[in-house]
Amino acid sequence: MELAFEKSGGLLPAIIQDERTGEVLMLGFMNAEAYDVTRRTGEVVFFSRSRNKLWNKGESSGHVLKVRDLRVDCDADALLVRVEPLGPGVCHEGYRSCFFRELDSNGEPRIVAERTFAPETVYGQPAAPGKERV
Amino acid sequence: MELAFEKSGGLLPAIIQDERTGEVLMLGFMNAEAYDVTRRTGEVVFFSRSRNKLWNKGESSGHVLKVRDLRVDCDADALLVRVEPLGPGVCHEGYRSCFFRELDSNGEPRIVAERTFAPETVYGQPAAPGKERV
Repeated sequence: MELAFEKSGGLLPAIIQDERTGEVLMLGFMNAEAYDVTRRTGEVVFFSRSRNKLWNKGESSGHVLKVRDLRVDCDADALLVRVEPLGPGVCHEGYRSCFFRELDSNGEPRIVAERTFAPETVYGQPAAPGKERV
Repeated sequence: MELAFEKSGGLLPAIIQDERTGEVLMLGFMNAEAYDVTRRTGEVVFFSRSRNKLWNKGESSGHVLKVRDLRVDCDADALLVRVEPLGPGVCHEGYRSCFFRELDSNGEPRIVAERTFAPETVYGQPAAPGKERV
């Protein structure tokens, strides 16, 4: 089926959910090529907006996301990718999920998850801007 | 905290997840005003890209989304809103979740959910483009 890539400048948001636990792990973007490669290889590939190229999730960390199923919404302009995540977490800050902060009623963040790995041992240096970022 | 609204032309993707079941229900977009109103009222408000204005989710259906908690990702450019959904479903096609179709290995859709309501009884006419759409 046709997906509505043109609706948002060629990119669709792709929600990544742990198939086993239901936890939402991250959100990335896919262009048509990233979507095709993801579907063909069974491993999640995004389009990195900051680096302006395809981004094989896990290419530096080894924390690959194995696709279990791929869903599309009613308007064909958003994807839900249910995955088996390899490794202890998807977030370059060292958490299982990128959504490790809750916003309180004043909009201030509070960390609500435990770190599951030390980013510097995985990425070779302290988590830095541009390292495995969307 | 500052959210990265400017990164995507003023809009952040907001994932809506049923807090109780973990099911991902839909994805919408929020501008700064929609985010503020959502936080202040405790009910999800999006910015509709097609109608170019705020969209109180449930305004025509009554299927309001009560915010249970609000999370932000590591780059502050995506939101995860965990909700209590009122009513039988969020999708204008009559499903609990907008992600009611799985894509097979050829990229063809297959419906994997049961309809939970008849859209025409909720929206007064068969589901039509522009009716409660992002």
